[in-house]
Formats: sequence, structure tokens, C-alpha cells
Amino acid sequence: MRCFTILLFFSSIVAVGLASNVEDEGIISQVVEIHRLRPQTGSAGYTVPQLDCLSWRLAVETNNLQNWRLVPKECENYVGHYMLGKQYRRDCEYVAKQAIEYAKALKLGGDGKDVWVFDIDETTLSNLPYYARSDVAFGAIAYNNTKFNAWTAEGKAPAIPSILGVYKTVLSLGIKPVFITGTRENFKQVRIVNLKKVGYSNWAALILKGENDSGSAVQFKSSKRTELVKAGYRIVGNIGDQWTDLIGENVGARTFKVPDPMYYIS
Amino acid sequence: MRCFTILLFFSSIVAVGLASNVEDEGIISQVVEIHRLRPQTGSAGYTVPQLDCLSWRLAVETNNLQNWRLVPKECENYVGHYMLGKQYRRDCEYVAKQAIEYAKALKLGGDGKDVWVFDIDETTLSNLPYYARSDVAFGAIAYNNTKFNAWTAEGKAPAIPSILGVYKTVLSLGIKPVFITGTRENFKQVRIVNLKKVGYSNWAALILKGENDSGSAVQFKSSKRTELVKAGYRIVGNIGDQWTDLIGENVGARTFKVPDPMYYIS
Repeated sequence: MRCFTILLFFSSIVAVGLASNVEDEGIISQVVEIHRLRPQTGSAGYTVPQLDCLSWRLAVETNNLQNWRLVPKECENYVGHYMLGKQYRRDCEYVAKQAIEYAKALKLGGDGKDVWVFDIDETTLSNLPYYARSDVAFGAIAYNNTKFNAWTAEGKAPAIPSILGVYKTVLSLGIKPVFITGTRENFKQVRIVNLKKVGYSNWAALILKGENDSGSAVQFKSSKRTELVKAGYRIVGNIGDQWTDLIGENVGARTFKVPDPMYYIS
Repeated sequence: MRCFTILLFFSSIVAVGLASNVEDEGIISQVVEIHRLRPQTGSAGYTVPQLDCLSWRLAVETNNLQNWRLVPKECENYVGHYMLGKQYRRDCEYVAKQAIEYAKALKLGGDGKDVWVFDIDETTLSNLPYYARSDVAFGAIAYNNTKFNAWTAEGKAPAIPSILGVYKTVLSLGIKPVFITGTRENFKQVRIVNLKKVGYSNWAALILKGENDSGSAVQFKSSKRTELVKAGYRIVGNIGDQWTDLIGENVGARTFKVPDPMYYIS
């Protein structure tokens, strides 16, 4: 009888220990593929609210969701993990792969008039070191112009490696890179230094937003592209992280959308 | 001593049972958010090759990847689970939510000239019962025109519930739905029956591809939308699963992309 009591006591401890373990470590018992696609854990169908962020991000990337101002609070962690994890890099690499394949297949004019338009922030350069700060929270905290400008002035933004690869391919093919950015003209020198430091060292034009450019991003970028076309250039490609880079007038023969779930520029 | 032996024996059974359970059910012990976003399982960093399909699908949905002919073989299971699981439905619901919010905020002419363009396949109606067949494999097996036409002729395609919601909202607001589909004219009756059966019962026009419409999807849909505009209609919204529904001429005041990782129409 005493032995039975000990046995019962021991097995209870094991059972309790197991149960609390499951809860603590968030162990998920589900077939792997299903698990990754279904926003549920466990066979009981417990829903993880944060996984609605998958639909949110898809809506952002396809431009179904427009004029949003902040990353939803419940998606702050999701966006952080996405940006710092491998998936963001993989998604960028996939876009770059398509752009490189497209560029290599182009029949060029050979007259030096073929250009490729590159946006800068979150396209050629990454502000992730800034956006990962706790007072920025991947875009879940309201944009602070003073703070962001201070970061830009440091000139420390790293390249997005895969887009640097697009740039190098484009250059090697004889297509002239043109940077068009919403950054203000007074940051021109610091941007030049930053771009060159990380590997972007050659371009036909670096167009920043002047004092008189007061319209929307679409208007500004459209007008600058139209000037290029009027000057006889052919925009064979156009790559940016915002849809405002890729819509409007003279968008180019083909556009490429780089992922960016951190902010929306209208 | 005998009691200790029993105790040891019992606890071994528990331990072995637990261990084999872990293996059998594919239990993953990792922090939930990291796990879902990083294409790895376990702390050892084992990569799941299939998860490259996340980047592939994003490239499809953003139109970075164009003119693709088949779902990559390694993504067949991924696409299947996505389409049959909750994520596809959630993604559709998210698009529908944006479209409904946009429609409700519109200032309408009140003259009966406001129209909303709906695509049919994979937008208002779902061919998922067909695409889930083993000889179709969610688009991982080459398209078979005869088989697909036989399915269409059955007139059994269900509605996509969330897009039916968009349709009902649009109707209730006094915006006239217009269907423009790449389906051939000889399927007109069966499509009408199918649409009505699942809840789409009212439209200003149902435009199918005629014998003389031999161009690309973009050309066909652009020309039909242009006819609408020339007839004095204002296209306030446009929803489709293919980018060819949403680019070209007179695309409408705003477009909405419904997810579709099963096929690409150029």
C-alpha cells in the first residue's frame, strides 16, 4: 500500500510537470506543413491572434491596404521577427532574382539611354537598424521626423545585399542606374557618402526631393521619371518598396516591389 | 527493493512513451512567433525547403513573378494546404474588408452610372473543387483545357464567401456590378445559372470572351472596361485574382487583388 502511494505520488508529479512544460514552452503538436499555414496551434484549434498579421502583410504588399499609418500593435512582434529573421531576406532575394533575370533578357538600345530607376530607403539602403530601435518598434510607434532625420544624417544605413546585386547586374549590362528618393535635397552629401560606402558608386542621376517638390510621393516620382523620359531615356526597370514608387506616369517597362511592412508612404 | 524496481519500470514507460510521442506527432519546441516566421524547425536550425514557397507566393501576389506556367513541384503541398486551410480564406476576407470599407466611403454619382468590375474565376466563383483534384494538383500539373471546360460546364463552382460579401455591399450601395470574364461566350448560360445559384443574381452586364476576342487578357479586359467608360459609366472599383484584371486601361478608381497561387493568366 505504501509502495502504491509512492507510485501514485511520483506519477502525479510527472504528469503535472509535463502539463506545465507544455504550457511554458508553447509546444505545438501538429503536422508541420499544416501548422505553418493554418493559424492554429494544436488539434483543439486554438487560434493565434497574431497570425492575422499574415493577411495584413499580404494586403500591404499587394496594395490592397492603403494609407495605413502604423503597424498594428498586435503585429509589432510579427513584423520585427519577419524583418530580423530569414524570411524578409529571402523575400528580397526572390524579388532580386526576378529583376536580374528580367534585366539579363532585355534587348538594350546600346546608345546609353537605357536607365533603371532605384528607390533608396528600404530598397537600396536599409533603415532596419533604426526601425529595430525600441522607440521605433518596426513602425508600430508613430513616425518621428526629427529622429529619422538624425538617423539619416549619420549615413550608416547598410545596403540590402540582394538589391545591391540587382544594381551591380544592371550596371554590368550597361543600363544606367538612376536613384529617385523622397529624401530632402539637404541630405544629398550624406546620402552620396552612405551609398558609396556600401557599394553603390555609380549612377546617371541621384534625384532628391527639392524645396519646391511639395506634392505626394506619386506626383514627385512621376514628374521626375517623366523628365527622364522627356530627356530621351528609356526606363527599362523600376524597383522600390512603396507602391508610390511603382504607379503613376512613366513607371517603366517593368516594376519590382521590394517588401516593406514597416511604413506606408502616400 | 521490489517497490523501487516497480517505480523505475513505471517511470521508464512514461519516459519512453513521452519520447516516442514527441517524435510521432512532430511536436516542435520553439517560441511560437519565431517558429512561424523563420523557415526553420528546432533550435538546431533545420531548414524546411518547402518554405521557400513563402517567397514564391509573395512574388506571385505582388506581380514580381510574371508569366509563370506551373506551381513549382516543391510547392504543390504548400499551395494545397494554403488553399484548403484557413489562411486563404482569411486572406480573401482581409481583401474583402478593405473593398467594403472603401466602397462604403465612396461618394457616388446617384445617376446609376457607378459600376464595380468583378472578375469571375477565383474572384466571385471558386474552382477549388476542381483544382484540388489529384489530376490538377492545385496547378502543379499542366492546365488541361478540355478538363477545365468540362468542370465549368457542370456549373458547380461555389462562391468565395467574402467576395460575395463585397458584391452584396456594392449592390446595396447602388453601385452596379459588372462581370468581365475570360470565359468563352458559349459558356454564358451555364455561368449565369452558376452565378445565380450561389447568390450573385443581379448585374448591369456579364461580359464574356467572344470569338473575335483573340488578344491577351489585359487587352480583352482593358477594351471591355474602355467600352464601359465610353458608355458613360464610372468604374469605382475593380476586383480580380489576376494582375491582368487590374492593369491596362481604365482599371477603375481602385483595384483589389484576390489571392491566387494556382495559376497565372497573361
